[in-house]
Amino acid sequence: MFEKLPGQVTVFEVGPRDGLQNEERFVPTADKVRLIEALASAGLKNIEITSFVSPKWIPQLADGADVAASLKLPADVVTSALVPNLKGLDSAHAAGVRKVAVFMSASESHSKRNINKTIDEAVTTLSEVVIAAKEKGHLVRGYLSVVFECPYEGSVNRDQVARLVERLLAMGIDELSLGDTIGAATPGQVVSLVKLLSKSVPLEKMALHFHDTRGTALANVVAGLESGVTTFDASIGGMGGCPYAPGAAGNLATEDLIYMLNGLGVKTGVDLNKLVDCGALAQEIIGRQLPGRYLKAALASRDKASCMEAKK
Amino acid sequence: MFEKLPGQVTVFEVGPRDGLQNEERFVPTADKVRLIEALASAGLKNIEITSFVSPKWIPQLADGADVAASLKLPADVVTSALVPNLKGLDSAHAAGVRKVAVFMSASESHSKRNINKTIDEAVTTLSEVVIAAKEKGHLVRGYLSVVFECPYEGSVNRDQVARLVERLLAMGIDELSLGDTIGAATPGQVVSLVKLLSKSVPLEKMALHFHDTRGTALANVVAGLESGVTTFDASIGGMGGCPYAPGAAGNLATEDLIYMLNGLGVKTGVDLNKLVDCGALAQEIIGRQLPGRYLKAALASRDKASCMEAKK
Repeated sequence: MFEKLPGQVTVFEVGPRDGLQNEERFVPTADKVRLIEALASAGLKNIEITSFVSPKWIPQLADGADVAASLKLPADVVTSALVPNLKGLDSAHAAGVRKVAVFMSASESHSKRNINKTIDEAVTTLSEVVIAAKEKGHLVRGYLSVVFECPYEGSVNRDQVARLVERLLAMGIDELSLGDTIGAATPGQVVSLVKLLSKSVPLEKMALHFHDTRGTALANVVAGLESGVTTFDASIGGMGGCPYAPGAAGNLATEDLIYMLNGLGVKTGVDLNKLVDCGALAQEIIGRQLPGRYLKAALASRDKASCMEAKK
Repeated sequence: MFEKLPGQVTVFEVGPRDGLQNEERFVPTADKVRLIEALASAGLKNIEITSFVSPKWIPQLADGADVAASLKLPADVVTSALVPNLKGLDSAHAAGVRKVAVFMSASESHSKRNINKTIDEAVTTLSEVVIAAKEKGHLVRGYLSVVFECPYEGSVNRDQVARLVERLLAMGIDELSLGDTIGAATPGQVVSLVKLLSKSVPLEKMALHFHDTRGTALANVVAGLESGVTTFDASIGGMGGCPYAPGAAGNLATEDLIYMLNGLGVKTGVDLNKLVDCGALAQEIIGRQLPGRYLKAALASRDKASCMEAKK
């Protein structure tokens, strides 16, 4: 084990989009900008900054264009935005976002419930957006959700997922993120799915998007790494992606991921200490504790250190 | 990966001891008994029920003898109790506990700070207890703490750990639990240490005891499983073992472990649904939420289900 680990992997930060869209209250534009700039300062080069979805559906991110316009980022940071349709694509394009992200589900029931479309209908819409996005010169990321377990159907058929992955890549999608949307996957499923996919698609186009709802996210990352995947999604502090109660974990926390990758000697270019500052900032702007484990331990230990400093 | 997983592993439950000793308030004896009996009903066959340490040091477990006397457990459940010295051993023996557990640190600084003894001094005391315990017919478990990272010294030398493990097993210790006491290990360290140990000691005598302080516990279990270890310690709800702030994670939660093992097809004999009941009970008797991730998600989803039931 760990005899052929990659020297470097890409961490794709989804917090400003996937995290903030799940917050009840609207986070002011200036705070969003501050968080995104801090994440970039910590060394993250791929950041999903917002979505261009109707504000009727996601009012939390109604200020996407303003966020994009206000950001001052190093030239090598690739910003992305989620777009559900051609209208969203136009807004993203006007906002100057380099990469656009499209999404669909790998299970029929989840697709119907989430976007009221069958898988085939979703592929059609998505295809139009991908073609138009490529014409406009955008990089395109795809999100395929519930690739392991569906909340309505249970286990999702691997072959069905593989066929869908092939269709999506054939459209010209540059990078496809496979989502364990309800955080139910265990490492054996990751190994099996990636092994199957590796037969028909290039693994360098795959990203894995884990949720830590049942504590298995980093174990799944290990399985993904061992299987040859080199891009992993994460969210600052574990913000967002939570289908359950407040306090339950959703997205894999970026700090937990970086801590483990550091320990494994896998480079990411991200400064863990600065990332903890970002986590503290995220907690400040949303006004509550985030579920990330490393963040909690690091902040508690900083508190202790500053207590001891004060006592001297 | 996962081509030679064991068909079955042993889960060693430490919650009633390692968990409750860390609670601020004293949990009534009857509640402790209720929790231990519930854990056994869920299928756990190895449960550390208390310690026989001076009540001056650990008043929370001053009722060890009463707990042991009150328990009604199936005959195949092996109870254990932590004993720091011959006096503790006598109490454990009188209480009818089948297995006794001794402990020491793998780093000099942690040993000095924790029990005010050098490693050599600790080995001497421990050896006396082990010999006496074997004479009295007890099974003996050893805990070796900070085998990966020490809070005072940083990385602990693997060869030093291996030599200590050999010395401890040579005394006649039946099972040795290797502790990542501050929850700082990453999976590569687990693979390296177990590989080294496998050269000189039988792995079936080893247990791994992970903390989830930085979210890496299950990833470390995967590394341990892949390396041939078949006993893993865990604590109901992740109770106890937390060196940081309230709310930060300590011990690996038993439910998270069982959930992942179920997913991997590794049998444990534990009923996950009953374990969630135990987690709820643990929360009730200590009066606060526990950090276990699966527990939180499962209880939130039960709440939702009973809400929907009520709405019908």
